[in-house]
Amino acid sequence: MSASVQPDLQSTSPFRTAEQREADRAAKRNALLLAAARMFNARGFHATSLDDVAASVGVTKPTIYHYLGNKEQVLIECMTIGLIQLQEAAAAARAEPGTAMERLCSFLRRYAEVNMAEFGQCVIRTGDELLSPEGLEKLRSLKRPIDAAMRSFIVEGIEEGSIVSADPKMLAFTLAGALNWPGRWYRPDAGSPPSEIATAMVDILMQGFAARR
Amino acid sequence: MSASVQPDLQSTSPFRTAEQREADRAAKRNALLLAAARMFNARGFHATSLDDVAASVGVTKPTIYHYLGNKEQVLIECMTIGLIQLQEAAAAARAEPGTAMERLCSFLRRYAEVNMAEFGQCVIRTGDELLSPEGLEKLRSLKRPIDAAMRSFIVEGIEEGSIVSADPKMLAFTLAGALNWPGRWYRPDAGSPPSEIATAMVDILMQGFAARR
Repeated sequence: MSASVQPDLQSTSPFRTAEQREADRAAKRNALLLAAARMFNARGFHATSLDDVAASVGVTKPTIYHYLGNKEQVLIECMTIGLIQLQEAAAAARAEPGTAMERLCSFLRRYAEVNMAEFGQCVIRTGDELLSPEGLEKLRSLKRPIDAAMRSFIVEGIEEGSIVSADPKMLAFTLAGALNWPGRWYRPDAGSPPSEIATAMVDILMQGFAARR
Repeated sequence: MSASVQPDLQSTSPFRTAEQREADRAAKRNALLLAAARMFNARGFHATSLDDVAASVGVTKPTIYHYLGNKEQVLIECMTIGLIQLQEAAAAARAEPGTAMERLCSFLRRYAEVNMAEFGQCVIRTGDELLSPEGLEKLRSLKRPIDAAMRSFIVEGIEEGSIVSADPKMLAFTLAGALNWPGRWYRPDAGSPPSEIATAMVDILMQGFAARR
């Protein structure tokens, strides 16, 4: 078999390329993680069994061990995806033009939307007490840049005069709490879509509930 | 033993009166519930054992069964106390003079403080998925009047013009979420006291984070 015929062979070969194998592996990991996230959110960590997660995608538990690891590793992987989505939301908002206030609003809307999606809901619904010390430390290191981004949008906004002079830490806690909570109550089958909920909540937080006289 | 000497006897009798027995029973129940709430909050429901709760107050598990019942019954009792405190906060605010806006602020501050206390933290930290259908129904019926009170302060405030014309449901969700979240992060051993945190958060929610120009 000479080198010159290889390209032709590749396109019709029953053997997959390294890229195809990698894409296939990633698609399988993602399907397993999404199934796991949905079950963690619906039943809680302790009541979720990897057997049931595996069955929901038509495989068996050893397949999950092979692709993802044990139950805590699966949970941490789900939470990691949610936290990376939040980090990406912060980076995207940081790159936007406009005032720090506008960038904060943009970040907050996306932050709320992520919290209503499967992996973000895992982040919100998992209390620290459910995690091992190593798992907790890993997740804390992923959360730190998100908290720091929230804080820095706020500090910049206060400096430019577009955000009220409040304690930045307390303001960050208040905004994060309000926009974390939809991760608890949001159900895809009822009510407004996440983007509308996020916009309405950020507007309320921005304007305050006191009527302006 | 004639009826006429009974009052004197009662005060020196080694036998307790019905009132004393009832007070004693209530004090024991309260001590057990507080110990349980602290352990549920620190470890989560599944990782808490009634043996450990009992040991933390120097008794054994049968004592807890006798006074409170099984582990879910203990959790529901802790959450019930927190929810009754929230109901009382709504009733106290409703009885205050002033505008609906002022009553809402008063309710929200107390709401936040309850959520930072032991029994309120149990309410915040317990996901619906941890409860049996019967337990969930009982707690929902206790939560309903609290949600209704929040909603009615808001509707009255919108009518009197003191609260912004927002969707009352979305406003209630936003305020509740912001003031529920301290139940997750608050630690008695670090930072400001609950009353200061509550006041600062309600001020932020009232004024909004956008600077007024």
